[in-house]
Amino acid sequence: MNKVLPGALTDLIDALGVLPGVGQRTAERYAYYLLRQEKAMSRRLAGLLETIHERIELCPVTFAFIDASEEVSSLYASTERDKAVVAVVENPFDVIAIESTGAYNGTYHVLGGAISPIDGVGPEKLHIPELLKRLASDKVQELILATNPSVEGESTALYIQKQLEDSGLTKIKVTRLARGLPSGVDLAYADQITIQHALSGRKTL
Amino acid sequence: MNKVLPGALTDLIDALGVLPGVGQRTAERYAYYLLRQEKAMSRRLAGLLETIHERIELCPVTFAFIDASEEVSSLYASTERDKAVVAVVENPFDVIAIESTGAYNGTYHVLGGAISPIDGVGPEKLHIPELLKRLASDKVQELILATNPSVEGESTALYIQKQLEDSGLTKIKVTRLARGLPSGVDLAYADQITIQHALSGRKTL
Repeated sequence: MNKVLPGALTDLIDALGVLPGVGQRTAERYAYYLLRQEKAMSRRLAGLLETIHERIELCPVTFAFIDASEEVSSLYASTERDKAVVAVVENPFDVIAIESTGAYNGTYHVLGGAISPIDGVGPEKLHIPELLKRLASDKVQELILATNPSVEGESTALYIQKQLEDSGLTKIKVTRLARGLPSGVDLAYADQITIQHALSGRKTL
Repeated sequence: MNKVLPGALTDLIDALGVLPGVGQRTAERYAYYLLRQEKAMSRRLAGLLETIHERIELCPVTFAFIDASEEVSSLYASTERDKAVVAVVENPFDVIAIESTGAYNGTYHVLGGAISPIDGVGPEKLHIPELLKRLASDKVQELILATNPSVEGESTALYIQKQLEDSGLTKIKVTRLARGLPSGVDLAYADQITIQHALSGRKTL
């Protein structure tokens, strides 16, 4: 059989197919779309992909993404942010989620994932030692464990709490994001675990 | 507010966000994945994107994708393929779908879409004139209108059929792919239109 697609196209489809959640059909759709658009669009994407690893680094303190020209995260460096309050999140994009509320004035610590034995992620792969060091140097008073409300996120939060106890850091207030009904979701449509959390966390009016 | 993400990263997220069906969250997920992988992966994707428009062209006869080094589609050029039978498809990837069956020995003609007034695609944007020319030069005996079983695909098939009549090309056999129950789908789960087609196209045993 003659080959149906040009080599450059199958190569591109294969390369796009490694993206998370992208199968053969989706990769074909992306490739076809890019081919039909102006050359400039693929070129621009190519240019950005070529340099991301050079232009983006991890902040050595918070492990958020920073511009290679910066020393530390500009958010951490800002004098307006309270370094005594640290929100511990799993991934860099969790920082955007919290920042978008405008309701938080502390700093962040990105773990780089959550403990998940099934995926081969043990605590040693997360930025936990750096967090413990930071607690002393930044005179941290509150640690908000803002890991995801999943089994992995909960295990990670528990692990960090245990590490603090083992290190004798019992004076630091450790909190966890509230769990309950998300806004806009009818009680009847909420899942059992969410309702359980909403019940056990109920507030006196 | 300090910017939360480095500029290079938001640029990449924006550039990935133009892909069809990719929203902000999906683009963030792709960018984060690429950043966490080896540099070589983004580099490879960048290299492919940089050159696709130069390395991939449209076959001037069939409008399938071809390698820039080829004159015409290798499938069309093959002496093993029957040029008197032409399957008319909407998009280049439809060729792969038919080829994957191994049940077709004719050639293809890619229209480059389907008539869709709502998307601003009229017949003048499709490779229909080139198809009509090809009918004579290739002494075509059968035209399989293999456009999609959608309103747009049906309209396009009807339009082409009308063009043939208007051009007096009434000796060419014009066929359409059969419609009916797809394999593996229970009758009870098939939609009404599919069942209607399965009924009207029923075969004597």
